[in-house]
Amino acid sequence: MMKLYWSPRSRSFTTLWLMEETGQPYERVLIDISTGAQKAPEFLAINPMGKVPALTDGDIATAEAAAICAYVTERFPDAKLAPPLGDARRAKYLQWLFFGPSCIEPALIQIFTKLEVPSSTAAWGNATQVFDVLDKALEKGPWILGNDFSAADIVIGSGLNFAIRQFKMVPPRPAFDRYIDRCMARPAFQRAETIAAG
Amino acid sequence: MMKLYWSPRSRSFTTLWLMEETGQPYERVLIDISTGAQKAPEFLAINPMGKVPALTDGDIATAEAAAICAYVTERFPDAKLAPPLGDARRAKYLQWLFFGPSCIEPALIQIFTKLEVPSSTAAWGNATQVFDVLDKALEKGPWILGNDFSAADIVIGSGLNFAIRQFKMVPPRPAFDRYIDRCMARPAFQRAETIAAG
Repeated sequence: MMKLYWSPRSRSFTTLWLMEETGQPYERVLIDISTGAQKAPEFLAINPMGKVPALTDGDIATAEAAAICAYVTERFPDAKLAPPLGDARRAKYLQWLFFGPSCIEPALIQIFTKLEVPSSTAAWGNATQVFDVLDKALEKGPWILGNDFSAADIVIGSGLNFAIRQFKMVPPRPAFDRYIDRCMARPAFQRAETIAAG
Repeated sequence: MMKLYWSPRSRSFTTLWLMEETGQPYERVLIDISTGAQKAPEFLAINPMGKVPALTDGDIATAEAAAICAYVTERFPDAKLAPPLGDARRAKYLQWLFFGPSCIEPALIQIFTKLEVPSSTAAWGNATQVFDVLDKALEKGPWILGNDFSAADIVIGSGLNFAIRQFKMVPPRPAFDRYIDRCMARPAFQRAETIAAG
């Protein structure tokens, strides 16, 4: 059985939601970041970055939230959390799956720290552009790939919920509100919220 | 035939190296960022982020360097640039593929801008830790997954070459030097360098 290493008040939420979407049993291992448990040697052996989330699958360990999404969707194809290999939607699925760490995360750090960095230097361009591009991509909906929900929505939806509803770092927009509402209406999202709330 | 949209002096190098590793024909479309061509409407239709690299495959467009790596390895499985689905090495392959945008990129921005951000806030922890973790992961070698070269090496190797050799933002270490040398010895890397040099 897979083990998900997680903590409340952390980026683990994405992977809690993911695991709940699979419908598969998994074990949750609490690594309480408020006590520094993520720096303990036994956890560093699992993720040397000393961060949650991390995942083990037997004696295999992996980390980085979006990578965990990619891996788990592969391991549980019946959960249909990704277009199958060879499907024409794979290109956009992968683009949006990587958009979370590549663009949303650094844009939020830029907003949080008021960092000035030339948009030609920053791989994510600038924060406004990141959210403009997402706005346009979510215009039609209901999901980022269109009709079918995927793990890319788990990454993008968690990021937008965090940025807009939880931390109010980014102003709401109608397309974002509709999208976050749709994410929050999913039973798996709600189960993950209950877990994360302890 | 796939089209790779690229520019000299940009993050396109990763994808030039990737395409050269596939051994497949592809078309290169120069989007010269020194002239602002990445902001032209016809390119924004391909990548609304207005950045290179981007890739089209027929009428499908994708972007984000590591996502392009993931996609191209799927489309050309015979190039053996990724462990196949179901292989035990997938978990680590995906972790390292995402480590580029999730950790190396923001660590370099942090170094470049001298940004102060609490390591508990930054998803990548801190820049020193990112390179410590890579150092340990590359200790054995020859590649990040061990014996077999993969697209994860294209992402990690491009990042380290950029950070250490090209921009001297990160001090060299023996494991990095051996690894970058191995990357640079690959004929596909050398072809990509020749292309990028114009």
